[in-house]
Amino acid sequence: MENNGFTNHPYCNPYRRNFPLLAENPLIYLDSAATAQKPACVLQAEREFYERYNANPMRGFYALSVEATERVEEARKAVRRFLNAPPEGEVIFTRNTTESLNLVAYSYGLSRLKAGDEIVVSIMEHHSNLLPWQMVARQTGARLKFLECGADGRITQERLNEAFSERTKLVAVAHVSNVLGCENPVARIAAMAKERGAVLVVDAAQSAPHMPVDVQALGADFLAFSGHKLMGPMGIGVLYGRRELLEEMPPFLTGGEMIDSVTRTGAVFAPVPYKFEAGTVNAAGAWGLKEAIRYLEAVGFEAVHRQELALTTMALEGLRQIPHVKVLGSEKAEEHCGILTFTVDGVHPHDVSAILDADGIAVRAGNHCAQPLFDFLKVNAATRASIYFYNTQEEIAALLRSVAGIRRKMGYGE
Amino acid sequence: MENNGFTNHPYCNPYRRNFPLLAENPLIYLDSAATAQKPACVLQAEREFYERYNANPMRGFYALSVEATERVEEARKAVRRFLNAPPEGEVIFTRNTTESLNLVAYSYGLSRLKAGDEIVVSIMEHHSNLLPWQMVARQTGARLKFLECGADGRITQERLNEAFSERTKLVAVAHVSNVLGCENPVARIAAMAKERGAVLVVDAAQSAPHMPVDVQALGADFLAFSGHKLMGPMGIGVLYGRRELLEEMPPFLTGGEMIDSVTRTGAVFAPVPYKFEAGTVNAAGAWGLKEAIRYLEAVGFEAVHRQELALTTMALEGLRQIPHVKVLGSEKAEEHCGILTFTVDGVHPHDVSAILDADGIAVRAGNHCAQPLFDFLKVNAATRASIYFYNTQEEIAALLRSVAGIRRKMGYGE
Repeated sequence: MENNGFTNHPYCNPYRRNFPLLAENPLIYLDSAATAQKPACVLQAEREFYERYNANPMRGFYALSVEATERVEEARKAVRRFLNAPPEGEVIFTRNTTESLNLVAYSYGLSRLKAGDEIVVSIMEHHSNLLPWQMVARQTGARLKFLECGADGRITQERLNEAFSERTKLVAVAHVSNVLGCENPVARIAAMAKERGAVLVVDAAQSAPHMPVDVQALGADFLAFSGHKLMGPMGIGVLYGRRELLEEMPPFLTGGEMIDSVTRTGAVFAPVPYKFEAGTVNAAGAWGLKEAIRYLEAVGFEAVHRQELALTTMALEGLRQIPHVKVLGSEKAEEHCGILTFTVDGVHPHDVSAILDADGIAVRAGNHCAQPLFDFLKVNAATRASIYFYNTQEEIAALLRSVAGIRRKMGYGE
Repeated sequence: MENNGFTNHPYCNPYRRNFPLLAENPLIYLDSAATAQKPACVLQAEREFYERYNANPMRGFYALSVEATERVEEARKAVRRFLNAPPEGEVIFTRNTTESLNLVAYSYGLSRLKAGDEIVVSIMEHHSNLLPWQMVARQTGARLKFLECGADGRITQERLNEAFSERTKLVAVAHVSNVLGCENPVARIAAMAKERGAVLVVDAAQSAPHMPVDVQALGADFLAFSGHKLMGPMGIGVLYGRRELLEEMPPFLTGGEMIDSVTRTGAVFAPVPYKFEAGTVNAAGAWGLKEAIRYLEAVGFEAVHRQELALTTMALEGLRQIPHVKVLGSEKAEEHCGILTFTVDGVHPHDVSAILDADGIAVRAGNHCAQPLFDFLKVNAATRASIYFYNTQEEIAALLRSVAGIRRKMGYGE
C-alpha cells in the first residue's frame, strides 16, 4: 500500500486512510488494546454479508442459506489458517474472548476438575481469564494457584517451578499481558503442563492482533481471541480447542443448531464445532472477521511489528524523560507489544486520562481488568496508551507533549 | 412511506425498497422466522457506530468511549421502551435469544431450583427454551413437566391445570410458536405462575418482530428475543428481567466490565445489568438493534400486522386448496403470526424445499428446532414458509404455484 501523503515524515503511515474513523477524526486513538479501529474493508464485508448472503446459516437447504453457511465456514477456515490449527484442532465461533474462556471453564473446568486438583493462573491475567477459574475452583474444590512474575512481568523458571506441581491439571495464561505488554513464555509453560498432563488455556486477546499466533508452536490446548481487537466487528470471537478435548466436553450453551436429536428428556448433540455454537451464529461478524484477518495479513505482521516497535521505542524513551512519570513493565520497548501503562506521581490516572482527552488523545485509565496484578505491583491504578500500526510518530509526539504538561496543569511546580 | 411502484397491485409493498437484499435479488424470501432481512438504515447505523463512535464502551473516560457508552445506553433505553419495561425491570444485552435463555437457566435455574421442584415447559418450545431446562433438571434434580397443547397449538385451561402444581417453581413458554405460529396465553400462564410463586420465562423470539411485546401486560419475569429476527444485526440479543431477581442471581459469564473489585480469590460484582454483561458488549450491534426498533416502529405494528395477515390468509387458503398439502396448526390465518408449516403427502420436506428453491423461493425444512412438538404431532418433519411485512402477494402467489407443482415433479399423478 502506498503513502497517502498524510505526512512527509519517515514514520508516515500509509494505512491510516483505510480507517474511516481515523481519517475523518482529528482524534489521537491510543486505546487499541481495548478495541481496534476498523478498516473500511471490514465494514464493507459485514455489509456485503447482509446485502448479498443474509440468511440463517446451518439450517437452510435453499441457495441463500447455503451461501450464508459457506461464508461462516470460509471464515472458520481463515481463522484455522491464521492460527496454524492442526487437523486435530477445531475453531468455534463465540461472542468474544470472555465467552470463549467461560466456555472452557464451564464445560471443561466443571466437568474435568475435582477437589485436590490445582489450577495455575498467572498473576497478570485479565479478569476474563481469572474469574472463570475462581468459579471453577469454588464449584469443584480445586485449588487456584498463582504464577507470579517480576515487576517487569518476567516469569522465571523458578516461579514456574513454584506454581506447578503433580496436581496441576489446568494452566490459564495470557500470551501477552494487557497491562505490561510482555509476551509470556507460553511454549515453555505448555511443555511443563504437558509433562504433568495438564491442559493449557491461552488468552491471545492481546497477541493475535500484533504477532503470528501459532497454536502448534505455542502448544495451546485451548486459545481464545476477540474479533474486535483485531479490527474485526464486535460480537464475534474465537475459541480454538483440541478436538479430542472438545469431543469429550459437555456442551455449554444449549439450543438450536447444536443438536442431532431432541426428546422430551434429553438430546444427542451435534459434532464439534457445532455442539458449542448454540443459536444463530454471528455469521456477518464471522465474515467481517475473515476480512479483518485478510487485511491484517495483507499489511503483514512484519510491517505491523516495525511500526509498533518504532512508536513504542519513541514513546517509552519519551515517557522516561518526563519527570515523575513511571512506565510499568520492562525497560525494553520490544517487550511491550505496543502497550505503555504509566503513572504520573501525585496525579490520579482518571485525571491523566481527562487531561489527555482534552488534548484529543484517547487513552484508558484504571486497573485494566487486572486488579490482582495492580495489587502485586502496589499500584492503585494507571493510565494505558496502547499502540497499533495505524498510529503515527506525530501522535506519539502529541502524547509526550501532553503527558509532559500534566503535573503543571494539576498545580505542581516544574 | 410511499408506494415504490414495485407493483400496482393493492398488496404492493412500499417497504421493500428499504431492503437492499430484496431490492437487488429476485429471491422470494419466506424464511423470516429464521432471520429477517435488514433495511439499509440498520446497516447504516452499524456502520455509523464504527465510523463515528467506535471505542470500547463502559471502560473509557475519554470522549469517544463516552460516546460509545452513550450509544449502548440509548439502545438499552430503546429496548426498555419497546418492551414497556417497568422501572423495576432491566435490559441486558446478550448475543441472542439462546444465550439469554441459557443465562436464566444457568444463573437463576441452577441457583434457585432444587430436587422436588417442578419446571413447566410447553411441548412446543424451541430447543433453546427446552434444552437449558433439561440441563437444570438434570443438575438440580428438579422435575421437567410438559405443558401439552392441541394439534392446533391451543393450550387449554385443562392442560394448564394438569401442568401446574404447588411444586411449580419455573415456567418457560414461547410467546409465539416458531412452528405453529400460534400465540400462547402468556398473561394467563403468568397469573397461574404468580399464584404459585413461580417465575415465568418468555421466549419472545417469534413475537417481538411481529406484535407489541409488553412485559408488564404479559407478566413476564424474564423475556428474551434476538436482534437478527427483528431486522437488527446478528450477534445482539436481549434479556429482560425483573431487577429483584437479577440482583439476587449469581453472574453467568465472568470477566471484564462486570466487576467492582477483584482479588486473587474472589470478586465483588457490578450492579445489574453490568453484572451480566461480561466482556466487550456488542455496542455496534446494540446501535443497529436500536435502529431496527426505530424502523419497525416507524412502519408500525398495525401495518405489519395488516400486511402479514393479508398474506397469511392468502397463503393459508391457497395451500388448503392444493391436494395432499396439510398446514400444521390453526385453521385461522390470524392464529399463525405469518408462519405456515406444511407437509406434502409422499414428499420429504427437504425435497419440497429443494423444489421451491429451484423456483427461487426460500423456505425452511426440518423439525425447526422443535422436535418434541413434531413427535407429539406425529409428523417427522415439515416445510415452513414464514412471512414478514416486506413480502408481497406476488410472492405468495409464486409459493402457491410452486407448491401446487411439487407432487407432479416428484412423479405423482394429478
